[in-house]
Amino acid sequence: MPLDVYDKLMMLAKRRGFIYPSFEIYGGSAGFYDYGPLGSRLKENIENLWRKFYILKDNCIEISTPTITLYEVLKASGHVEEFTDLTVDCKKCKQSFKLEEIIKENISIEKAIKNNEITCPKCKSKLKNPYPVNLMFSTKIGIGQGRDAFLRPETAQGIFIDFHLLYRYKREKLPFGVIQIGKGYRNEVSPRQGIIRLREFSMAEAEIFFDPKDKNHSNFNSFKDKELYLYDNEKEKKYSLEKAVNDKIINNQALAYYMYLTQEFLISAGVDLKKFRFRKHAENELAHYAEECWDAELYSERFGWIECVGIADRSAYDLNSHIKKSGTDMYATRKYDKPKIVEIKKIIPKMAELGPLFKKKAGEIKIILENMEVKRLDKILVKIDGKTIEIPEKCYSIVEKKEKQTGEKFVPHVIEPSYGIDRILYCILEHNYIEKRKKDEDYRILKLNPIISPIKVGVLPLINDNRLYKIAKEIDFLLRDSGIETYYDDKGTIGRRYARMDEVGTPFCITVDHDSIEDDSVTIRYRDSAKQDRIKINEIKNILKEKIMN
Amino acid sequence: MPLDVYDKLMMLAKRRGFIYPSFEIYGGSAGFYDYGPLGSRLKENIENLWRKFYILKDNCIEISTPTITLYEVLKASGHVEEFTDLTVDCKKCKQSFKLEEIIKENISIEKAIKNNEITCPKCKSKLKNPYPVNLMFSTKIGIGQGRDAFLRPETAQGIFIDFHLLYRYKREKLPFGVIQIGKGYRNEVSPRQGIIRLREFSMAEAEIFFDPKDKNHSNFNSFKDKELYLYDNEKEKKYSLEKAVNDKIINNQALAYYMYLTQEFLISAGVDLKKFRFRKHAENELAHYAEECWDAELYSERFGWIECVGIADRSAYDLNSHIKKSGTDMYATRKYDKPKIVEIKKIIPKMAELGPLFKKKAGEIKIILENMEVKRLDKILVKIDGKTIEIPEKCYSIVEKKEKQTGEKFVPHVIEPSYGIDRILYCILEHNYIEKRKKDEDYRILKLNPIISPIKVGVLPLINDNRLYKIAKEIDFLLRDSGIETYYDDKGTIGRRYARMDEVGTPFCITVDHDSIEDDSVTIRYRDSAKQDRIKINEIKNILKEKIMN
Repeated sequence: MPLDVYDKLMMLAKRRGFIYPSFEIYGGSAGFYDYGPLGSRLKENIENLWRKFYILKDNCIEISTPTITLYEVLKASGHVEEFTDLTVDCKKCKQSFKLEEIIKENISIEKAIKNNEITCPKCKSKLKNPYPVNLMFSTKIGIGQGRDAFLRPETAQGIFIDFHLLYRYKREKLPFGVIQIGKGYRNEVSPRQGIIRLREFSMAEAEIFFDPKDKNHSNFNSFKDKELYLYDNEKEKKYSLEKAVNDKIINNQALAYYMYLTQEFLISAGVDLKKFRFRKHAENELAHYAEECWDAELYSERFGWIECVGIADRSAYDLNSHIKKSGTDMYATRKYDKPKIVEIKKIIPKMAELGPLFKKKAGEIKIILENMEVKRLDKILVKIDGKTIEIPEKCYSIVEKKEKQTGEKFVPHVIEPSYGIDRILYCILEHNYIEKRKKDEDYRILKLNPIISPIKVGVLPLINDNRLYKIAKEIDFLLRDSGIETYYDDKGTIGRRYARMDEVGTPFCITVDHDSIEDDSVTIRYRDSAKQDRIKINEIKNILKEKIMN
Repeated sequence: MPLDVYDKLMMLAKRRGFIYPSFEIYGGSAGFYDYGPLGSRLKENIENLWRKFYILKDNCIEISTPTITLYEVLKASGHVEEFTDLTVDCKKCKQSFKLEEIIKENISIEKAIKNNEITCPKCKSKLKNPYPVNLMFSTKIGIGQGRDAFLRPETAQGIFIDFHLLYRYKREKLPFGVIQIGKGYRNEVSPRQGIIRLREFSMAEAEIFFDPKDKNHSNFNSFKDKELYLYDNEKEKKYSLEKAVNDKIINNQALAYYMYLTQEFLISAGVDLKKFRFRKHAENELAHYAEECWDAELYSERFGWIECVGIADRSAYDLNSHIKKSGTDMYATRKYDKPKIVEIKKIIPKMAELGPLFKKKAGEIKIILENMEVKRLDKILVKIDGKTIEIPEKCYSIVEKKEKQTGEKFVPHVIEPSYGIDRILYCILEHNYIEKRKKDEDYRILKLNPIISPIKVGVLPLINDNRLYKIAKEIDFLLRDSGIETYYDDKGTIGRRYARMDEVGTPFCITVDHDSIEDDSVTIRYRDSAKQDRIKINEIKNILKEKIMN
């Protein structure tokens, strides 16, 4: 069987230091990969480009929260119950499979298993009935019994449970966006798709909090005529943002705008637009928290269309859950034009009951209760010394009274663009991989965009001469010092050295030759055209900086 | 009890968005903190400054490997046995304590417990005998029985197990350095020191591979007269790098050079040199893998001297362990001036035994055995299809023969500077926190170095006027677009706005006033001197860029 582009790329990736299978010296483990020197730089460049889109163009703030997450958080978010894959085990060889990998159509699974319509993909024996398997890696905090925890399945929850603090940081104004870049984990039943299905992966997520009555975006009008590449109801079609929202193909401006931002980011990062589309989730495909979701999909020769970004309207699902479970005030306020007199429910604490029950803390609890707003909480929870306790009904009564209010409280809605960095990185490599024959040898080029290339410029003294080495090394340091990634190489023929640079996607090479000693000039060679120009040494930095940014 | 600087800082950190206790709405969990919008930016700036030292000045390459680590890796590295804390439990209240937190001196523990010389710090009851507790978070990969794994206690192992690939990437030349920045985990028995003792933390580690016969560093001579702040044998003393190495206070050039790089990095990041020292580990304090280790310690008013960086000579410990356990060739080669004829041991495979035992694989195993070098392996291990198998003795014989060799193989030594980013970040905040009274109010300044400040410049329209807002917003965008972090603020008196910027360490403020409309100029205010200058709008970017870099 001839090698496909995935095989070839992964060989190149290993040989040249992009991607290594993890723990290979101990037999490896499916779903884990290392980024080598070039891969780690490429990944970082993609993440920094992403940051630029969300921090610079969209004014988001960034936070960083732990990967280990308390059970309580993921219980409230629904992941303990819902973050599962239906799994089947083989009766004979005992291997486990993710059900959706075995079947694609909507059939009655139990019946199909019974009638041997689906059997073990490995040994062809009978399968047992499917059962849900939670996909979170679990661990314990502390020794002994410890405290249950998981590795986070998404970075989003770390943002949600800080909402009240971030709302205060943003001076209580909506909308605002919060991003987080970091590791996510998914204990796949049987990952069989290499770097596309990782158990530990890099995510970049943005959670943008909106007033549910106003899901417009201030940037929408500037981009309303731009076109989105949608694939809906089996049709591929270009829609302007405005038309997509007006025709209710996309439910609101915010969702449409973040889809556009996603499309722009992916194109800037070097995705082939012909291998890009948005696909809407069908009702039965939506995650447990999502009201509407669009995937940005990238096409791979090996894997077909791959989900690389999900842009979801999570509505108030997560904040509501955390308010209910934790009793924390995570509301936002919509200011009235003028204050209103409203009827509200107030708690009247009964000290005669609170006192014996809570002793020294009773006074503190009394004050919290008096200042609490009742109407939206299911039960009366009070947080004291970091612990949330439920106050028994006998300890208070509830009265109604009139109060002047300056605004009304509401739970914000969330629009979430969530990016799988590793998949995007792989697709960028695949979309930009070019193979040809040159002088009877295979010649490989990665046409990476300069902004994400791990090495921006190769610095090459033309021949073995210490004077040329010295000039080349000075240029190399000067460029690195100004933040441009270089690769100094004085080994082998110049053709071989160009080839090495082309193969790892280096867009420019600087060649120092004997004339450089006299005329303070060097040759710059462009990867994509193989064209060469003569430029002054003291102009290199500015010329490169400009070319890298464009 | 009056608040100490830690309390005050942590209040500021929470109020202004540097650091939040994690999972606070669910009661929190000791040893976990979130970085808010300013903290996350500050942390990233520190990491990028660090990267600059190691990638730019020291030519290291960077890789990125998973946080989940196979049992086999950490078994081989010694962490399964050695990464432990002696722990005692209280007989009555059942609480667990890390032994070294209860006692400081070298006493007979069992006797002291028996005689009630040490008792439960919480309830004063009798303690049980101490026992070692492994500090790694454990988890399982896959479902059912799964595969044992841990969250990595250090990023270093990810580098070591890729050594052979990285050596090839560096074209088989030593020395070379590999860095990794990422999460490390340590399931502390009872973390009681806030952000100083985290269960999940950020590390920046460099592993520099040397020929053990040559632990010199090419940069050493340029810095040999620079002084290190050493604290050895209870004495504080400044030593030049050269004298420290010559007097055998520090064992080799490489170690001394990386200590100097560490000192320079910490000073650039804003550490107070008066609160900085290097301390040598005593023999009984050394980690299981270390031959010599120096800590860079930073002084905190609350915690005393804190270990923030460890610079260790790990010798060949880790590579040797992985060679033994995995059977992988992780040697480097020292080229001879001219080839030598040497006697070597060769394996002669016996196909009559291999055939029945390994069937289809026998041929492949035969080839591997014939090409294997015997002298350094304890047993004959062969890696095939990702699995390592031991070949029974009956399957081969060993003969001695003469061979021409071009170099000799050896296991490289490793010098490792390992940085705790969170501790460094905290100490930088503490060292730069200034409190004074101003107009009868508490006034707080963080004198952060511009290079690491989360916000470089506040952009402030002096008064409520749309024309000033427009100019200010243009300046704000221009600066952000060129990568300078800004904060636009038009709310409150100008004094209040300066105060808000001073409190979060913003080194510069740009004020737009009515004159700006006429003269295209603005006022720049310096945090540390409160001095103000008038500058042209089109000069702002370059002036700031220069000031941020210095």
